[in-house]
Amino acid sequence: MNATIELLQSHRSIRKFTEQKIPLELLHELIRAGQCAATSNHVQAYSVIHVTNPENRQAIAELAGGQAYIADCSDFLVFCADMKRSTNAAERAGAEVVRGTTEQLVVASVDTALMAQNVAVAAESEGLGLCYIGGIRNNPAEVSSLLRLPEDVYPVFGMCLGYPDQNPEVKPRLPVESILMEDYYRDDQEEEQVSGFDSTMNEYYRERSGGNKDTNWSEQLKPLFTTKLRPHMQGFLQGKGFGLK
Amino acid sequence: MNATIELLQSHRSIRKFTEQKIPLELLHELIRAGQCAATSNHVQAYSVIHVTNPENRQAIAELAGGQAYIADCSDFLVFCADMKRSTNAAERAGAEVVRGTTEQLVVASVDTALMAQNVAVAAESEGLGLCYIGGIRNNPAEVSSLLRLPEDVYPVFGMCLGYPDQNPEVKPRLPVESILMEDYYRDDQEEEQVSGFDSTMNEYYRERSGGNKDTNWSEQLKPLFTTKLRPHMQGFLQGKGFGLK
Repeated sequence: MNATIELLQSHRSIRKFTEQKIPLELLHELIRAGQCAATSNHVQAYSVIHVTNPENRQAIAELAGGQAYIADCSDFLVFCADMKRSTNAAERAGAEVVRGTTEQLVVASVDTALMAQNVAVAAESEGLGLCYIGGIRNNPAEVSSLLRLPEDVYPVFGMCLGYPDQNPEVKPRLPVESILMEDYYRDDQEEEQVSGFDSTMNEYYRERSGGNKDTNWSEQLKPLFTTKLRPHMQGFLQGKGFGLK
Repeated sequence: MNATIELLQSHRSIRKFTEQKIPLELLHELIRAGQCAATSNHVQAYSVIHVTNPENRQAIAELAGGQAYIADCSDFLVFCADMKRSTNAAERAGAEVVRGTTEQLVVASVDTALMAQNVAVAAESEGLGLCYIGGIRNNPAEVSSLLRLPEDVYPVFGMCLGYPDQNPEVKPRLPVESILMEDYYRDDQEEEQVSGFDSTMNEYYRERSGGNKDTNWSEQLKPLFTTKLRPHMQGFLQGKGFGLK
């Protein structure tokens, strides 16, 4: 296994950071590495808001469900899917632009994620830690308003970056044979595989909690799907001009 | 700049591959590296179909708009957003599961992209080349049917992997100041920045074509938005149980 693969396989979310600040030049280097990820038809359908204003950091920490590390980390970024720049460019070049398609929602969300993951890998290669913040989608309209996001731009997730002040274990993943399938989708062993992974996760939670946390993967997933998590997303996205048709 | 960042910044799509095959053990290692990417609430909302059947490779090459390297590369993967496994697991654990939300479409698409980008980085760290295939969304229903994808699973993109038999230049990206914004979304210089990038791309196309290809970024974007690219996506996704509400 080479050093890069080892780096990828040692990822874990960091939620506690030292006081040390990331030099701005390094931050730019990480973003440039992000931009080198593949992008659908070269559209580059993303913008990144570097939130430096402490009041806005605090406000977003609360809007994301009380995640204090959003305010405390060295740098907090909001990765936005952005169809505005490219559709404007095409329009100025004379195109009669069609906006608001579900295809564009997929393109922009995927472009943004590919880009962010390169930023994450680059950051970890420099000894930084990070965690993605999906919680900004708890209140995406308020976050958008704080960051003054225009139509055709939506906040997909945030990312806390900084120098780690904790060293958590790598969290187990489903066995490769559960998710990699030859030629056809195969779910004949799904229940058995999930049950095996439930045992793995049960052991992981018990060990980390000194035996106090007796749960597993399936149990942890329950609250995510029982209520309609973030039921505002369809309306919010359509209001921003995404997924209208 | 460290070696990992250098690797990230040297990415370019590879569409011509040698005959050399990727060992299956290495392919599994790449997938495991992919799985170590961050995942929303540990959902791991993806499956990967390893298409080995030559007839299906050929069929997908055609369905994706005539991309022969889908049939020719060492390994072709289809990355699928998968809400089936996790919602089934929650249901078996006793949850009254809500499916079909737009939030789940975002979660699963993002999870899949983060995972795939780690696979891409891992592959390039081993000297492999790759290109993403968004073209499978040209005919997603036919691709889904070939791969027997059930409800709550949709094919986001493909990936061709193999040993490079070409050495293209790195394609320029927007300058970092166009996409990284401090505190607020700023588009007051958008037109100027795009115009500068149009010049960069014009030079890139002219150099690569010996002066014959006189175009730029904005011009290249025009056909993407003029017609409604992949207008079937909303209906297709809803048919698969994504983005219904």
